Amino acid sequence: MGEFDLIARYFKRKTPSALQPPAPSATNSVAIEAPPIALGIGDDCALLTPAPGQQLAISTDMLVKGRHFFPDVDPAALGHKALAVNLSDLAAMGAEPVAFTLALALPPERAADDAWMSAFAQGLFALADEHRCPLIGGDTTAGPLNICITVFGQIPVGQALRRDGAQPGDDIWVSGTLGEARLALLALQGQIELAPERLAVLRERLERPIPRIALGRALRAIATSAMDLSDGLSGDLTHMAVASGVGAVLDSMALGKAVGPVAECVSPRPADPVSLALTGGDDYELLFTASPGQRDTVNALAVASALPLTRIGQIRSGSGLWLDDGAGGQSAIARTGYDHFA
Amino acid sequence: MGEFDLIARYFKRKTPSALQPPAPSATNSVAIEAPPIALGIGDDCALLTPAPGQQLAISTDMLVKGRHFFPDVDPAALGHKALAVNLSDLAAMGAEPVAFTLALALPPERAADDAWMSAFAQGLFALADEHRCPLIGGDTTAGPLNICITVFGQIPVGQALRRDGAQPGDDIWVSGTLGEARLALLALQGQIELAPERLAVLRERLERPIPRIALGRALRAIATSAMDLSDGLSGDLTHMAVASGVGAVLDSMALGKAVGPVAECVSPRPADPVSLALTGGDDYELLFTASPGQRDTVNALAVASALPLTRIGQIRSGSGLWLDDGAGGQSAIARTGYDHFA
Repeated sequence: MGEFDLIARYFKRKTPSALQPPAPSATNSVAIEAPPIALGIGDDCALLTPAPGQQLAISTDMLVKGRHFFPDVDPAALGHKALAVNLSDLAAMGAEPVAFTLALALPPERAADDAWMSAFAQGLFALADEHRCPLIGGDTTAGPLNICITVFGQIPVGQALRRDGAQPGDDIWVSGTLGEARLALLALQGQIELAPERLAVLRERLERPIPRIALGRALRAIATSAMDLSDGLSGDLTHMAVASGVGAVLDSMALGKAVGPVAECVSPRPADPVSLALTGGDDYELLFTASPGQRDTVNALAVASALPLTRIGQIRSGSGLWLDDGAGGQSAIARTGYDHFA
Repeated sequence: MGEFDLIARYFKRKTPSALQPPAPSATNSVAIEAPPIALGIGDDCALLTPAPGQQLAISTDMLVKGRHFFPDVDPAALGHKALAVNLSDLAAMGAEPVAFTLALALPPERAADDAWMSAFAQGLFALADEHRCPLIGGDTTAGPLNICITVFGQIPVGQALRRDGAQPGDDIWVSGTLGEARLALLALQGQIELAPERLAVLRERLERPIPRIALGRALRAIATSAMDLSDGLSGDLTHMAVASGVGAVLDSMALGKAVGPVAECVSPRPADPVSLALTGGDDYELLFTASPGQRDTVNALAVASALPLTRIGQIRSGSGLWLDDGAGGQSAIARTGYDHFA
């Protein structure tokens, strides 16, 4: 099968449901414009026409075999995750998904593996369809397996959630639970043991992260800053604090709560829950700040969206990250987020 | 050096000249809006605000070591080419460059090689600055060397040059000369011999293609369809003919002219000039169609832009590619464009 047949077979869809007008969303009371895709796959460029008053949010992520995923990963999960990590960046800005491009380097034996290719495309498009985010262009080449997705979202001008808006006195919040993807990774690497049914649950967190698109949109009017957690809380929160020119104090009790009950179920314990929360990585949850006056609103949002939102600390003036032990002591937190070249 | 230091050192520029308002262009009599970049590198997403009445043109290309470039390629040339092949896609749509993202997988020894990294960044940004097209985001990871650029351009709604607009009776044109990059490749592979000074000239064509941005913009009002030549004329023209639902007849004399004098200078001759024109690859010239009434306009454009524009054939109804031998004979041309999985 040649390059153009490959594209036609797996990636060119005549009537993607993602091109249909979006359904009304519970967390969005604003009318949504028709998707702005003027031209999709098949020409030198795709063409987008953003609606008046909208900005385009753009993010790109590259996934490399052996670094971002295991060589024997379920291809459907890989297709899902490659798009999910990009959609997570849109969520962090409060943007609505619009479309994505896919550049794919494939070893020839993968390209010839129909079961693998079909499953990859199925995983990719299932998530794309869920977010009405069609594939509008790309590139396919032979080479070591590498997946590069660039995603486009739209957001009303001036409403984007940036990471430089945190103010002293703001609460610090995280969505969902932290550290579960890391536990799954440790188990798959043989560093800890998990019961099979427990591993199955945590492995979903590692391999099929859920981009918090609806939460990001709801936070437009609530949060002072936001970002997604991909490299671990301590490293990511450091980026936010530096961008905002502030420091942060985290509450160790609340952090333990954000990790949830799973840390109690493993043997041997890989680390204390607080360390797991701080250094987890691959969480793809949202980290955001909001003024204390928004606590009721945030708590109501957690209930309405059936997603835990945990208040884990407070922004303060100055710089650095600090851990409050709940007994009056504070200690500096080392930045220990993931770094590909560290 | 860590991932974030790497980005800060080589790719984050405080005052890129590309963010300055563009200078007036000789081939553009329309006033240009300020660049629409609302937020660049450093957050989860970049933000673009296209000017009212403008569409965004988007293209993505992935370059893999050993397939798109030699492992020992001049890193400055590699930086240039990685962006050039993407800008060439904007040129083919008649779009004005706006910005690009860069996803980069680097072996750790490359990331630690300051001379290589600096030269790569220099080659990349020299071309970006020339086209006032700033880097607005990206991703850096360890892995087998892989460069994925996604480029954004803008174009007034409805003016994009698509590949599906060719009409029976239209002339077929190409810019510049064809086959020179292929000759350089054959020489570098040791399949043909070239005098060193000749190879130096042709190698520039292979390693530093010039995206025909100004030509693409000028063609908005002239051409019925356009695309860039990357995989070889016969394959690329087949894509255009299929998209437009037409056939094409090429003039062998004119094709020989489009190859230029270089084919006469090599030993042994790798192929006849017509075959070289048809199967060259890596030309990054524009292929376009226009009605015969536009011949004087196109010829005047060639003079004004000091770039040869050669009329190489005609669109006709039906399908397929045909070669006219100039003596009344016509033969079918096999599609022989480059295919990464063929």
